[in-house]
Amino acid sequence: MTTPPARELTRVTIVGLGAIGREVLKALLGKRSVRVVAVADPALGGHDAGVVAGLEPLGIPIEATLTNALTTPTDVVVVLTTSGSAEMLPIVEEAAARQAHVVSTCEDLAFADWATPDVAAQIDAVARAGRIAVLGTGVNPGFVMDRLPLVLAGACVSVNAVTIERVVDAAKRRAPLRAKVGAGLTVAEFEAGVAARTLGHRGLSESCALLGRGLGWVFDEIRTHIGPVVATAASPRAGVAEGRVAGLRQTAQGILDGRTRVSLTLEMSLSAPAPHDRIVIDGDPPLDMTLAGGTHGDRGTVAAVVNALGVIRTLAPGLRTMADLPASGLVS
Amino acid sequence: MTTPPARELTRVTIVGLGAIGREVLKALLGKRSVRVVAVADPALGGHDAGVVAGLEPLGIPIEATLTNALTTPTDVVVVLTTSGSAEMLPIVEEAAARQAHVVSTCEDLAFADWATPDVAAQIDAVARAGRIAVLGTGVNPGFVMDRLPLVLAGACVSVNAVTIERVVDAAKRRAPLRAKVGAGLTVAEFEAGVAARTLGHRGLSESCALLGRGLGWVFDEIRTHIGPVVATAASPRAGVAEGRVAGLRQTAQGILDGRTRVSLTLEMSLSAPAPHDRIVIDGDPPLDMTLAGGTHGDRGTVAAVVNALGVIRTLAPGLRTMADLPASGLVS
Repeated sequence: MTTPPARELTRVTIVGLGAIGREVLKALLGKRSVRVVAVADPALGGHDAGVVAGLEPLGIPIEATLTNALTTPTDVVVVLTTSGSAEMLPIVEEAAARQAHVVSTCEDLAFADWATPDVAAQIDAVARAGRIAVLGTGVNPGFVMDRLPLVLAGACVSVNAVTIERVVDAAKRRAPLRAKVGAGLTVAEFEAGVAARTLGHRGLSESCALLGRGLGWVFDEIRTHIGPVVATAASPRAGVAEGRVAGLRQTAQGILDGRTRVSLTLEMSLSAPAPHDRIVIDGDPPLDMTLAGGTHGDRGTVAAVVNALGVIRTLAPGLRTMADLPASGLVS
Repeated sequence: MTTPPARELTRVTIVGLGAIGREVLKALLGKRSVRVVAVADPALGGHDAGVVAGLEPLGIPIEATLTNALTTPTDVVVVLTTSGSAEMLPIVEEAAARQAHVVSTCEDLAFADWATPDVAAQIDAVARAGRIAVLGTGVNPGFVMDRLPLVLAGACVSVNAVTIERVVDAAKRRAPLRAKVGAGLTVAEFEAGVAARTLGHRGLSESCALLGRGLGWVFDEIRTHIGPVVATAASPRAGVAEGRVAGLRQTAQGILDGRTRVSLTLEMSLSAPAPHDRIVIDGDPPLDMTLAGGTHGDRGTVAAVVNALGVIRTLAPGLRTMADLPASGLVS
């Protein structure tokens, strides 16, 4: 029979009870196959996790450290605190010592091999030694510009190039995202923010490299650019003065042997017209996919974390990517 | 490192050198990681496989039987000859005896558990005993109405219902498909063909059941219907007389506790307006995906077979489905 065995209960420890962490907690409370057994957040130590999430008390006191949280046996540690692979290494070490798998929204971890191959190798070695899987997940990186186009490419005999565009209306997202895209700044302030790396989306190069690898391309170079989307008389944006920045347009291009094989464009701006995700595969056969309205960044990220819990225990030990996950479906 | 090990060469035996088999052969000749080592087709015994495919001679004489073809050691047997799971069983037995995995376009094999759970259990047992994986693949079933919506649902926290519509212009497909959809028949002839099971698409119920399983639903019932698409004055179809059948509209609905959770509609007709694949997920978040023009049935099926070869050796032994495959990407 192809019917999978009945799932054991998966015990989960959440690290980081910010906006996404609270939504992950709430989502997991609705799932039969998962139980949240501990929560860690240094800023919230001692509070009840349910109360912090705006619910009734859950009887889960928030621990100030992962070490304390890990005194409660767990199967998976969900890490929602960092964007950098290097910061993940000590967390993975602690989890591996307790035989707990790791699922994280850490953007760089989506494909740590690209920017920090040494850190990736260390995380992979620790994970293999501890016989755990470590996975970076999310919507972008993790879905729209890497996992989903790879699945689509499975219906292609060959692929010449992939072009992906994601347009997000930042007005519909949380304040941290609106700040990250520079909404309301002058162009000069925007450019300074880009130079100082306080503006910009993280993970685009990782998506580009991961998608490329799945298509058989190890890029010579990934060219990136971050530019402002400016409100003008001809193209006004609600809530943004003319001449001010409405958001950003960020690109990554995977170049191999002088050819652009993968081209990613992410626009996140206030009142962006016609938000959507579009994946165009120049291949045999060609494919032209549009997600009308786009994949909701926050809800989709919560979902990616939740659904990873259904398969993380079946993955081979080591540092894995969203390209390794089966189609599987939904955690129930 | 998350980089996969360099792939060993995968040796492939093709069973069935009809239209799809010839295209699979040609596609595999362009792949570095795969080598076609033998071909079997009872109607073409003794001919050179390359010549049959319209190429230069390949030095691969077509064997009349799988038994003869399997005297050449192989890693995967690609079976392109049958639609029924029961017919697959003896083939799987022969392949398992030679430790060769099986990839097939057999429609019922896409989710054999649904219609023939006993046969599915037998195939699964034979495959496990021989430590091989057996996979039914294709575009439909295998991609548009099962694998792809399951991958999309990975970005959903929860799903209430899924509605999928595929519209295919049969004029752009091969003659067997045009015949299968009843093009040119009277409505009475069409209804007689449906009753005699000579008309209609195979695999819709399998997609419905496989998609449902991934979403946590084992349906009480899958309701199916096949109706004609008739050319009329108001809705003319090129090459079809008014009042005659242009093709079919086939539906499958997965019902659980009285609710329709999955609704699949497949229209295949001559000059169908605006061919496309559309997947609408009523969920959190909602998703509304369209593949403009649709996924090409024949090229996509060739691709599904070819790309399955890149992962079949990594799957757990047994009867697997397209829901088990990682995103992986393209066979190079």
